[in-house]
Amino acid sequence: MRTRNKPWAKDRIESHPHYIVHEPESKKGLWAKEFNNTNPIHIEVGTGKGRFVIEMARANPDVNYIGVELSESVIVMALERLIEADLPNVKLLNINANDLTTIFDKGEVARVYLNFSDPWPKNRHEKRRLTFSSFLDLYKTVLPEEGEIHFKTDNQGLFEYSLQSFSAYGLLLTYLSLDLHKSGFEGNIMTEYEEKFSKKGQRIYRCEVRYPKES
Amino acid sequence: MRTRNKPWAKDRIESHPHYIVHEPESKKGLWAKEFNNTNPIHIEVGTGKGRFVIEMARANPDVNYIGVELSESVIVMALERLIEADLPNVKLLNINANDLTTIFDKGEVARVYLNFSDPWPKNRHEKRRLTFSSFLDLYKTVLPEEGEIHFKTDNQGLFEYSLQSFSAYGLLLTYLSLDLHKSGFEGNIMTEYEEKFSKKGQRIYRCEVRYPKES
Ligand SMILES: C[S@@+](CC[C@H](N)C(=O)[O-])C[C@H]1O[C@@H](n2cnc3c(N)ncnc32)[C@H](O)[C@@H]1O
Ligand SMILES: C[S@@+](CC[C@H](N)C(=O)[O-])C[C@H]1O[C@@H](n2cnc3c(N)ncnc32)[C@H](O)[C@@H]1O
Repeated sequence: MRTRNKPWAKDRIESHPHYIVHEPESKKGLWAKEFNNTNPIHIEVGTGKGRFVIEMARANPDVNYIGVELSESVIVMALERLIEADLPNVKLLNINANDLTTIFDKGEVARVYLNFSDPWPKNRHEKRRLTFSSFLDLYKTVLPEEGEIHFKTDNQGLFEYSLQSFSAYGLLLTYLSLDLHKSGFEGNIMTEYEEKFSKKGQRIYRCEVRYPKES
Repeated sequence: MRTRNKPWAKDRIESHPHYIVHEPESKKGLWAKEFNNTNPIHIEVGTGKGRFVIEMARANPDVNYIGVELSESVIVMALERLIEADLPNVKLLNINANDLTTIFDKGEVARVYLNFSDPWPKNRHEKRRLTFSSFLDLYKTVLPEEGEIHFKTDNQGLFEYSLQSFSAYGLLLTYLSLDLHKSGFEGNIMTEYEEKFSKKGQRIYRCEVRYPKES
């Protein structure tokens, strides 16, 4: 997400530890305590300006949401939205997805959402795609057995790649729409990117995949 | 494929046993002999008017093609085209795909093509779709280990269903295009339906899947 660098972002982030959790490694295994309940925790990796997690949290008060976002100047925009929404079941983490396994115990995350992830179209950047096998390893480490990833994007190339990557990893495809907004799928919460690209007439692709039972 | 009933079709079919093989069960295990060579045999299930198998055969003289078609009044049109093309590496079978395993030995078919298969959109007709699990069982019985199915269609619903059916069956997705004609895929041979629907502006979906190694 391209945004101007915001030199004040760091201060702003640190001023709201209740929403943007500091030293999240120290919460590993303790996220239920952090939320004061044992509801399932769903994370969005690359949450951007946070609309998705915040609107999902509003619609599903019995689920806890964590938005993970690398960029300081982007996550501050999610923070402003969250301060306004004032919801108890959303937190934000200003971390790199690579660090997920230092922050969550096995099974501590009930579901992973990937929305409009950066496509990295060049072959030599395959490893940076959030659906590359090394990321599937990371998600597996924090999800329970048969944990799920829900993925949507307008990017045809990334979606083609990802379905093949999921298949090669042995994930089971349990839902697929090649034109989400015409599919009758209920309860869709649009992300910022989704609104922008669907307004331009782009189709939205969506799938759900499930890790196999461990044997 | 909707066509007028052709009362003379049966006679016409029987008049060309070299092209439309009679009593194909009697050739089980003997197809190499039938073609006079040991080249791989690729079948198209639901071949329609036969353009695909005939043009593939022309382009790939080292592969033998068999077009399987249920309907007499449709297969006669493939026959006329084949008589004109006069190729040694194409045969047609006027059979139901259900009977594949009575006609081919394990591994006797090297690849299965499904092109623009009837979509059967109603849930209660799921079992009739050529990508339903019972058909995947049949193809498996005639393919070698790690045998492949190559599938294309313009029908979004059938394609969504089929990718899920393949995944549930444990097939590996090795190729995927969500817009074949813009994908740069080389050597595409258009089928009759493909030409018709792509002219109407429909996207063509294409995938390749592979059966797992048997262990
Ligand atoms: C294209 S935006 C999509 C934002 C939002 N999900 C939406 O649909 O509107 C992708 C976001 O993912 C973030 N991102 C990319 N790689 C990341 C990583 N490894 N860890 C955390 N965030 C990442 C980027 O900073 C960017 O904000
Ligand atoms: C929609 S047409 C497509 C024809 C051709 N493949 C094309 O792409 O132009 C589907 C064909 O499959 C045939 N078919 C359907 N079910 C079949 C079955 N169980 N066994 C053999 N042929 C079948 C139909 O008779 C019809 O001709």
